[in-house]
Amino acid sequence: MNQYEKSEQPPTASKTKYASRTELKVAIEELRAAFPLANSVVTDPDALKTHGSSEHSYHPAAPHAVIVRPTSTEDVVKVVNIARRYRVPITPYSGATSLEGHFSGYESISICLDMSGMDKIININVDDADLTCQAGARWEDINHVLKDKNIPLFFPLDPGPGATIGGMVGTGCSGTNAVRYGTARAEWFLNLTVVLPNGRVVKTRRRARKSAAGFDTAKLFIGAEGTLGIVTEATLRLTPVLPTKVAMAQFPDVQKAVSAVQEILQSPQGPHIQCIELLDDHMMDAINTAGFVDKPYPIEDTLFFKIQGDTASAKLASDVVRSIATKHGSSRFQFASTDHEAEEMWQNRKYALMSSLASHPGLRCWTTDVCVPVSRLPELVYETKKDLKECGLHSTIVGHVGDGNFHALILFDREHEFDTASGAVHRLVHRAVALDGTCTGEHGVGLGKKEYLIDELGENTVELMKTVKKAIDPLNIMNPGKLYPDENDKPYH
Amino acid sequence: MNQYEKSEQPPTASKTKYASRTELKVAIEELRAAFPLANSVVTDPDALKTHGSSEHSYHPAAPHAVIVRPTSTEDVVKVVNIARRYRVPITPYSGATSLEGHFSGYESISICLDMSGMDKIININVDDADLTCQAGARWEDINHVLKDKNIPLFFPLDPGPGATIGGMVGTGCSGTNAVRYGTARAEWFLNLTVVLPNGRVVKTRRRARKSAAGFDTAKLFIGAEGTLGIVTEATLRLTPVLPTKVAMAQFPDVQKAVSAVQEILQSPQGPHIQCIELLDDHMMDAINTAGFVDKPYPIEDTLFFKIQGDTASAKLASDVVRSIATKHGSSRFQFASTDHEAEEMWQNRKYALMSSLASHPGLRCWTTDVCVPVSRLPELVYETKKDLKECGLHSTIVGHVGDGNFHALILFDREHEFDTASGAVHRLVHRAVALDGTCTGEHGVGLGKKEYLIDELGENTVELMKTVKKAIDPLNIMNPGKLYPDENDKPYH
Repeated sequence: MNQYEKSEQPPTASKTKYASRTELKVAIEELRAAFPLANSVVTDPDALKTHGSSEHSYHPAAPHAVIVRPTSTEDVVKVVNIARRYRVPITPYSGATSLEGHFSGYESISICLDMSGMDKIININVDDADLTCQAGARWEDINHVLKDKNIPLFFPLDPGPGATIGGMVGTGCSGTNAVRYGTARAEWFLNLTVVLPNGRVVKTRRRARKSAAGFDTAKLFIGAEGTLGIVTEATLRLTPVLPTKVAMAQFPDVQKAVSAVQEILQSPQGPHIQCIELLDDHMMDAINTAGFVDKPYPIEDTLFFKIQGDTASAKLASDVVRSIATKHGSSRFQFASTDHEAEEMWQNRKYALMSSLASHPGLRCWTTDVCVPVSRLPELVYETKKDLKECGLHSTIVGHVGDGNFHALILFDREHEFDTASGAVHRLVHRAVALDGTCTGEHGVGLGKKEYLIDELGENTVELMKTVKKAIDPLNIMNPGKLYPDENDKPYH
Repeated sequence: MNQYEKSEQPPTASKTKYASRTELKVAIEELRAAFPLANSVVTDPDALKTHGSSEHSYHPAAPHAVIVRPTSTEDVVKVVNIARRYRVPITPYSGATSLEGHFSGYESISICLDMSGMDKIININVDDADLTCQAGARWEDINHVLKDKNIPLFFPLDPGPGATIGGMVGTGCSGTNAVRYGTARAEWFLNLTVVLPNGRVVKTRRRARKSAAGFDTAKLFIGAEGTLGIVTEATLRLTPVLPTKVAMAQFPDVQKAVSAVQEILQSPQGPHIQCIELLDDHMMDAINTAGFVDKPYPIEDTLFFKIQGDTASAKLASDVVRSIATKHGSSRFQFASTDHEAEEMWQNRKYALMSSLASHPGLRCWTTDVCVPVSRLPELVYETKKDLKECGLHSTIVGHVGDGNFHALILFDREHEFDTASGAVHRLVHRAVALDGTCTGEHGVGLGKKEYLIDELGENTVELMKTVKKAIDPLNIMNPGKLYPDENDKPYH
């Protein structure tokens, strides 16, 4: 008898066998024994449901079987060991801001590992500009703490409000600052502490800024959506806070706005651009209608800028930005002259979702994102607006235009227009992939984008991802059903 | 009988079985048939030896069995398929500039896959600031072509002269520009074409600047030193060429120089710093002695800067740099006032190895690199200089001090001082790891740093790397013997 005859099934068998109902019950009892504190192990049906679904995503969601709230890496090891013993799926959960069904329950048998209590900052090294925290810490809280301590450093990844470090690693997030600072896939995570499916704890690196000691195992977990292990701590690289000016420029059309963006970013002033956000005419209309502004804006395709640097450099950069914008046909260019005005101007960008909803009471909003090479962005925007108009849907568009990343906020009647909205999202993604782009620039795959991965990356690349997944998580207990397309998946569109 | 009984050995068996001499001969015949052009398949003993060793590294080197020169991805697929069929190891080779034995032959049975003929630029997208090339292209040639075409963009990773894109991916390279632009592990490689050990070709992404479509499989190959597959093409992200000023500041000691660096990088002028290089007093002495300069420099620990930006911003940044340097005790601060002077000043940094050798005729030079958090750099430098002095070795030190990356150029008599030099390197690495650093900041692991990986990363992290390796390359044909420590390895120190 060789070693494989002992196991129940050969390791390559494709259908995963999870805990039976009886085994699940025993596993939950073991979790209760391991976490005796009140509210550490929760099976309240309402909580199981709300922890398994998001009001802003529209993918089929199942409730979890149990919620567990760890407070340390050792706690997570305990949970993973119990999960592995009984083959219970684990879905990590923290900020619950993701949009593609990443934290949906799995067939009502999953453990929801609620990391939101693991939100401590462990230490700050001001001299080396780095910081170590638990994975449930929110990026906004981290930056507030640094500000309160008068440390002139910040962590520049800025996804949606409420996002946590663990979730930001999982989705490979970015945000408005990515044009200047790159994304989660750059070098902002110096070191991750991860509990692997086998219960072992790895630290991916030490604290040096650079290392050439093999491939960077941290990068395996960035964008893996919790399918390869549970991130419990992270050492973040910080960067100096710089003075910032806010400006906006309006354009007769998106092509002209994008041409201006390309010239600005390739000019010697490019490095001073912290953010360039595109809000289309519909979005500007929604901002006016929602009533969040003192004085309505002209309804045109608009760029919002953050320009950084000391007063003299920012002044020079601003002059160059204005002159390039004018050259490309900008009809209106405006600087925020006070901090209050800058904040108001920028909030119009930040509250895009809220404005879109407020301008169309009673409708729901399906937010989706794609990303294409910047030169292909105008074509993507035009075709998408035409398509949405033809199928009678209202939609606003906001984009991290410096990166070619584009969000459509599609408004629809939940009862009568769900299929229409779903179809429009589907065609948008195919359009982006056909333009040499990606099905998601920053929201991730989750359940919602799985069906596009082979089209975008090719079968061999997806197979490579699955090979890594199978090797690290042979029992498929880590957030199963997400990210990797499977022949058995039914498309949602 | 289950599926595993059919195979010669269970897939987890640790000792790899490679081609017998007879099988190797057949494999070489098949290579000759597949590549009939002259000089495509070479078995000349001198070439096999020189392609398997480097005059600047001191690790045990074996010759290859055959050199193959592909010109396309399809050619590489042919080689990989033949290699897999006969279980012949493949070692990629191109710039041959690496220092840690990465391209050493394996037990005289390896195929040296000489990629240096695959050096074409395939296309340049100026609007999107990206470029696609074959893996054998040199970074310097790419930047020359861009300059010749008057395209004001460049690729900012700048390892040693002669390095090629494939090798730069393999070692996860960086260089003097890393303080401003990050390393190969950031987002400079948008897409890689890779031939996997199973002969399949993957493209890791499309051409969008950002993607959140799963973990980035390109990152698997960055720093994997050719152990997971052969990179054949790459899409590189480019960045605008900015005007640059060169300056130098001299300090009474390394601690003061490092304190100045920390304050400069965390100031609002930090983003204007393209490079900060530390040359210790011995290095300055070597530059004077080697006679490459018109006028000798004072012999002190010295920082060389590149400051970037338009004239006004660079002027302001330079004033701030000078003032911070003075505050931290800089005795002498000098700007290059002409382009010629700037070039000469910077070349003193670039020719560090040459100067070190020229100043001590007859000696060899063992170049090694480590990296620590910047705040720990002075301690590392002091302890290392003390150690080298105690064992009677001459050495110069140059460092990418903004990243805490440190190169020791240890001069030794090949016949009488090899063991002394080797011991000093060994202690230097242990010292760096003990200071929360890494055994290599940019040179990579190869043969020379394998023995430190478990100490630095821990057994679980190394095991994770090996798990990925085994899953992707179960026959262990891709550059075996490099990077991953093995119980059977004998330490070199």
